Amino acid sequence: MAAVAESGMSGTFLLGELAERIGAEVQGDPGLRIDGLATLGDAGPAQLSFLTNPKYRKAAEASRAGALLVGQGSGLSGRNLIVASEPYPALAELLELFHPTVAPAPGISPDARLGDDVDLGRDVHVGAFAVIGERTRLGDGVIVGAGAVVGRDCELGDQTELKPRVVLYPGTRVGQRCLIHSGVVLGADGYGFATSGGEHRKVPQVGRVVLEDDVEIGANTTVDRAMLGETRIGRGSKIDNLVMIAHGVHLGPSALLAGQAGIAGSTRVGARATLAGQSGLAGHLELGDGVIVAAKAAVFADLPDGSFVSGIPAMDHRRWKRAQAVAARLPELRKDVRELRAKLAELEKRLGAED
Amino acid sequence: MAAVAESGMSGTFLLGELAERIGAEVQGDPGLRIDGLATLGDAGPAQLSFLTNPKYRKAAEASRAGALLVGQGSGLSGRNLIVASEPYPALAELLELFHPTVAPAPGISPDARLGDDVDLGRDVHVGAFAVIGERTRLGDGVIVGAGAVVGRDCELGDQTELKPRVVLYPGTRVGQRCLIHSGVVLGADGYGFATSGGEHRKVPQVGRVVLEDDVEIGANTTVDRAMLGETRIGRGSKIDNLVMIAHGVHLGPSALLAGQAGIAGSTRVGARATLAGQSGLAGHLELGDGVIVAAKAAVFADLPDGSFVSGIPAMDHRRWKRAQAVAARLPELRKDVRELRAKLAELEKRLGAED
Amino acid sequence: MAAVAESGMSGTFLLGELAERIGAEVQGDPGLRIDGLATLGDAGPAQLSFLTNPKYRKAAEASRAGALLVGQGSGLSGRNLIVASEPYPALAELLELFHPTVAPAPGISPDARLGDDVDLGRDVHVGAFAVIGERTRLGDGVIVGAGAVVGRDCELGDQTELKPRVVLYPGTRVGQRCLIHSGVVLGADGYGFATSGGEHRKVPQVGRVVLEDDVEIGANTTVDRAMLGETRIGRGSKIDNLVMIAHGVHLGPSALLAGQAGIAGSTRVGARATLAGQSGLAGHLELGDGVIVAAKAAVFADLPDGSFVSGIPAMDHRRWKRAQAVAARLPELRKDVRELRAKLAELEKRLGAED
Repeated sequence: MAAVAESGMSGTFLLGELAERIGAEVQGDPGLRIDGLATLGDAGPAQLSFLTNPKYRKAAEASRAGALLVGQGSGLSGRNLIVASEPYPALAELLELFHPTVAPAPGISPDARLGDDVDLGRDVHVGAFAVIGERTRLGDGVIVGAGAVVGRDCELGDQTELKPRVVLYPGTRVGQRCLIHSGVVLGADGYGFATSGGEHRKVPQVGRVVLEDDVEIGANTTVDRAMLGETRIGRGSKIDNLVMIAHGVHLGPSALLAGQAGIAGSTRVGARATLAGQSGLAGHLELGDGVIVAAKAAVFADLPDGSFVSGIPAMDHRRWKRAQAVAARLPELRKDVRELRAKLAELEKRLGAED
Repeated sequence: MAAVAESGMSGTFLLGELAERIGAEVQGDPGLRIDGLATLGDAGPAQLSFLTNPKYRKAAEASRAGALLVGQGSGLSGRNLIVASEPYPALAELLELFHPTVAPAPGISPDARLGDDVDLGRDVHVGAFAVIGERTRLGDGVIVGAGAVVGRDCELGDQTELKPRVVLYPGTRVGQRCLIHSGVVLGADGYGFATSGGEHRKVPQVGRVVLEDDVEIGANTTVDRAMLGETRIGRGSKIDNLVMIAHGVHLGPSALLAGQAGIAGSTRVGARATLAGQSGLAGHLELGDGVIVAAKAAVFADLPDGSFVSGIPAMDHRRWKRAQAVAARLPELRKDVRELRAKLAELEKRLGAED
Repeated sequence: MAAVAESGMSGTFLLGELAERIGAEVQGDPGLRIDGLATLGDAGPAQLSFLTNPKYRKAAEASRAGALLVGQGSGLSGRNLIVASEPYPALAELLELFHPTVAPAPGISPDARLGDDVDLGRDVHVGAFAVIGERTRLGDGVIVGAGAVVGRDCELGDQTELKPRVVLYPGTRVGQRCLIHSGVVLGADGYGFATSGGEHRKVPQVGRVVLEDDVEIGANTTVDRAMLGETRIGRGSKIDNLVMIAHGVHLGPSALLAGQAGIAGSTRVGARATLAGQSGLAGHLELGDGVIVAAKAAVFADLPDGSFVSGIPAMDHRRWKRAQAVAARLPELRKDVRELRAKLAELEKRLGAED
């Protein structure tokens, strides 16, 4: 089945041309005509598929694809192959080639409402029923999808796109080339309440959210404004759907946050962090660079550079793996202990009798 | 307190009539007039309540309800009862009877915006400020709520309803009789990035989302489009709120996914799966039919048909229960081991001395 | 960096004036001019910062802030201080002083759509592209943000604010002075299906959601309507982002629910509960007053007043802490047991030989 939707479809290429474009090599027939990319299961003889995860080796062997994009040493034989040193980035490049992005035409919908002193760059698109608050600045090529609400005093950098129904609270700053998916809320109040006498008094949240350049944020994710100062998402960070980033968090550049992960207030995370799905960081922590937090893990303490942690509470991943292996066999361990106790008691009894 | 809202309220019935409609039996007075359904705590003498969960047995005994819908062998006596072989589906039927759905009148709001070549079936309703993209097809009786945004090239099957503020990205296909709640985002980009030299390059997501017939999706849930091919939700699946379904997931028919569950990319799940609240499945897995994943569990490995798993990482549920029973008493187990060691050392010492 | 956005900025105060307003004492120069509040890192000599969490003690010492708001016994010396008995509520008060709320001007946007018989209080604001259903009542000073959709037969109490793009399903009742953040969905159908012969039949959800007074609900959180009767959020409860509250839940007053927490259907929670981030409560439970559920914990059983629980399944927090300390060292414990077994076997052998 042909791919669709967010992008158009363009032309046909020879396998050799494709390999050349991505700086890879062909094994097999460089003259094979390729009219598209498809999954291993869907691809036919005129389509290129790919093997970037060894789990799908058998599916690759069984695939009807005319050719396969693979890494070095794939071991596949008798197939037309494009062999790339880094097949996954190469796949990204080929997807762009076959499915070039189709941006909506520049223009402000007559059904959009712009406040006073909105500053529009060149080639801005604002969709129907979008609302832009006063004094907000949209850079060149910005796209604001239908029904999005951008508060006053916001800034959106060049080429940034808000998909339909994104909300930016006032004062939010988004860098260049960011992509914010539908349902995302940036800049809602941080969760701050001062409890006194059993009553919770709201602590005003008067800071802002800042997204640096090249950030992508997945559908229905929320990033709260800081109480004071900033909640900041570092350059090139990629955040999945339904992630929660609390007030005052500072996320270093190039972070990867998978679906339903969460970071509590004021925690600071270094560069190139990876938070796997449904993981969480407690508040007021300091995490170093290159930290990896496994799926479902909960981090309650600071972590040095390069940590790889798992579990609740999170611990070193290898230690966790070993501990879990024992944990699954705890009933047996207890049984062993009981047997030892019985044997020892018997021994003591015997020795007591011997005394 | 009377129920309201999504449905109207119609008439009064005799207890015997109600029993007959659902193929159940009356114990007590079939001539009792019933003017509505209510919870055990709220119901009065002219209302029917229900006992479908034994936990509420005492509340049922204390209820002022004029009559109770129960299963066989409820053991309740001295009450007017409707005894059904399957009381929960029977309750569904009675709720429909007392609260028939009130659909909005067909018609396209003058405040909606439809793109070129939108194909409208009969009796379609499109609410205010909804946006429908070009070439999208809405089947007969489709309802698009206020402020919903449906991208271009989408298809909505007959009688499907989008509640207010749903977003469908371009190319999404929704079957017949589906119900999609507010805030749902279908077809946002899957989370795919190729990391090279510490930078994350977006891998274009050019597949689609397909919902088969009779699917219900809860508020603010997200289902991402596939990189290539489809993310597919099987017929009759019911998905709760704030669930995350990643790109390329295939969910078999009749799945039940409770709140805040998540499924990572490319995982395939067989028929009739149950994922309890806040559970998660890692990516690239194969789960068989009839799998049950307990609340909070995290599945990191393939599962055969009929598996029932719990824990992080998930293991057989009974094994997990036994292991958890020991885990809660680990300090005692360690104490036992230390005592054994001390006793053994003493014994060795004594025997050493004896030698 | 100056704070912005949701609030204006007003004037300059002497340190002594600020202290007087919050009933606190000055140490140092009461005549110091303060023109704003800022974080420890951002504050300069004309700004007041604060130390309410001992973790930031060093940052406080290093701060360039002209003065600091602290609690008693802060031990900071050589600094201008405002010493308050409860510094966090005092900070809330000062934030309000420097950043008074700027409410949007009353008025109904010509781009909003109101149904028949909508009952508007005084000084109501309804933003662009908002939709209000028939017979809905908005109290005095209510604010409905842009693009919000309020169903028919809803009630919003005086001074309640819906931020942009909130959805209220029909029949929802919201008390006075509530604040509902963007993307929240109140009153979507509860997750109720009666399974028979492998098919899931929808159980109509005809109850409602009731929010009592002074409730705040964070971005993209969902609260489902009851099947019958009410889902009720008690007075003064504060709920964070991406929280899921299922049908029929009753939450006592003054609850605190942190990000991504979830409560399954029909569970009742007493007063002043605290659910930390990503925690969950199973359905049909009864929790007493003052219960604390730690981050990531999963409660599967009723809890008495004052419980403080952690873990999956949740257990007494201190027991959990002790158990986790052992759990992390399970491989060592198993090794100990194996050594004991070996020693014991040797001993038995020796003794057997002696016999």
